[in-house]
Amino acid sequence: MSDPRTARGAWRLRADRARQVADVVRQQIADGVFGTGLLPDERTLVAEHGASRNAVREALRLLSAEGLVVRNRGVGTRVVARKYEHGLDRLAGLAEALHEHGPISNEVRAAHRIRPPDAVAARLGLAAEQPVVYLERLRWLGDRPLSLDLTYLAEDIGAPLLSEDLENRDVFALIEETSGMPLGSAEVSVQSVNADAETAAVLGVAEGAAVFAIDRLTRLADNRPVDLESIRIRGDRITLRSVLRRTGERA
Amino acid sequence: MSDPRTARGAWRLRADRARQVADVVRQQIADGVFGTGLLPDERTLVAEHGASRNAVREALRLLSAEGLVVRNRGVGTRVVARKYEHGLDRLAGLAEALHEHGPISNEVRAAHRIRPPDAVAARLGLAAEQPVVYLERLRWLGDRPLSLDLTYLAEDIGAPLLSEDLENRDVFALIEETSGMPLGSAEVSVQSVNADAETAAVLGVAEGAAVFAIDRLTRLADNRPVDLESIRIRGDRITLRSVLRRTGERA
Repeated sequence: MSDPRTARGAWRLRADRARQVADVVRQQIADGVFGTGLLPDERTLVAEHGASRNAVREALRLLSAEGLVVRNRGVGTRVVARKYEHGLDRLAGLAEALHEHGPISNEVRAAHRIRPPDAVAARLGLAAEQPVVYLERLRWLGDRPLSLDLTYLAEDIGAPLLSEDLENRDVFALIEETSGMPLGSAEVSVQSVNADAETAAVLGVAEGAAVFAIDRLTRLADNRPVDLESIRIRGDRITLRSVLRRTGERA
Repeated sequence: MSDPRTARGAWRLRADRARQVADVVRQQIADGVFGTGLLPDERTLVAEHGASRNAVREALRLLSAEGLVVRNRGVGTRVVARKYEHGLDRLAGLAEALHEHGPISNEVRAAHRIRPPDAVAARLGLAAEQPVVYLERLRWLGDRPLSLDLTYLAEDIGAPLLSEDLENRDVFALIEETSGMPLGSAEVSVQSVNADAETAAVLGVAEGAAVFAIDRLTRLADNRPVDLESIRIRGDRITLRSVLRRTGERA
C-alpha cells in the first residue's frame, strides 16, 4: 500500500478517490438519474461522496475525457452522451433492441457472394468451396455511427436478403421472414479493444478509442449455424446489460 | 462507396480486407485453434483468405498492435496472449470462472467500513447514514493483473468478510459461507472504455488501453441487494462469452 503521507501516496489516494467518484457518477449517468442533464455542482458532489474538491474535479475530468459530460464554466457539468442499452439477455438485432431510441439506418458498404475463408466456412458448417453472402454495414442511430458489422451468411439464407431493404431492416428479421424459419440461439463473445485507424475513421471516433468487438454465430431454431457476424460497436454509445442468475438459468 | 481505382479507394479496400482477415484470425486465437502457438505463414493466409499479401500483413500488424501475437522474422507469427473466457451465462466470481487457468490472487488495497455516497446507499437499499464495507482488490491471474474491483457491501454481509482470506477467495463464495444464504441474481452492465492514467498504471497497461468497465449489483436469493461492484478488467486478458436465445430464456 502506498503511504498517503508521501506526495506519491497522496496523489494515488486522490486518483483512487477520483475513480470511485467517477464510477458512481458514470453509472448514475447510465441509469438516467440526472433528469435535467445537469450534474450536481462540485460542492454537492464533495458532500455526497465525502471526497476532496480536487478528487471530485479529477472525477469530472475523467468523465469529460470519456466524452460523457461537458464542463462549462458558470453553467456546470452537463451530460452529453447517455449510452444506449443493448440487452445481452435475449438474441435481438440492433434495430429491434434500440427501437425506442429511434430508427437504425444501415449504410451498406458491401452485399455480394464471396468464397469465404476456410475458418468462416467451418464455423458455418460449410464445405470449403461453398460460397457465402457477405454483408458489410455501417449502422447509424441518429446522426452518428453506432457499429460496423461484417456478416457472413450461408448462401441459401443470405441470397434472398440481397433484394431486401438492407438499409432499414435488421438481418435477423429478414432471415426469419425470407426463410420462414425462426432463429434459435447465438454464441456470443465480447471483447474490449482499441479501434485501429481505419475502423476508427469509419466509426467516427479517435484512433485507439475503446470499442466492443463482438463475434456472434447465430443458429436457426433447428440448430444449423447460418449467420456469422463480426461487429465493432462504439464504446461511447452502448452499454451491454444482462441479468445473471447464480443457478445458471436466465433471469 | 469509395472507388478502388483511386489511391484512397485502394487503401480503404486493403484496410477493409485486413480487418476482415484480422477478425477471423482473432476469433481463431480466442477459440484456441492454433495448437502449436504458431499462425500459418503469410502464403497460407493469403490463400486461405483470398486476400493480398499486403492485406494479410496489415491484418497481422493489427493483431500485433493488440498484443495478441508477436512477429519474428524467420520464425513466423506466434500467439502470445490467448484471452481467458469469462462466461456471462451464470453469476460467478472470477476465481470460480477461471479456476481451470490457475488460482486468482487478490492484492487487497482497501478493506474497511466507509460512509458510502448516497447513490451507492440507495442502490443497496440502505438509509443514507448506514455504513458499508468497502473493498478494493487488484486481482492477479498468474504474473499479471487481470482486474481492479471496487466493492461496496451491506455492513452485516461485509463485516464478517473482513476477517476472512480476502487474498485468495472470491467475495461471492465468502458471502455465501459467512451469511449462510445463497446469492440469487445480479444486474450487470458492461462498458468498453479507455483506461485513465491511474487505472492503467494499476492494471499494468498503457494509458488509454481498452478495458471492460463492469457495474454489477448482486442480490441474495431473497432479492435483497448486498454487493455493488465496479470492476475494471483488462481488455487484453478476457473475453466475455454468452449463449443467447431468441425466445429470451437462458440457453
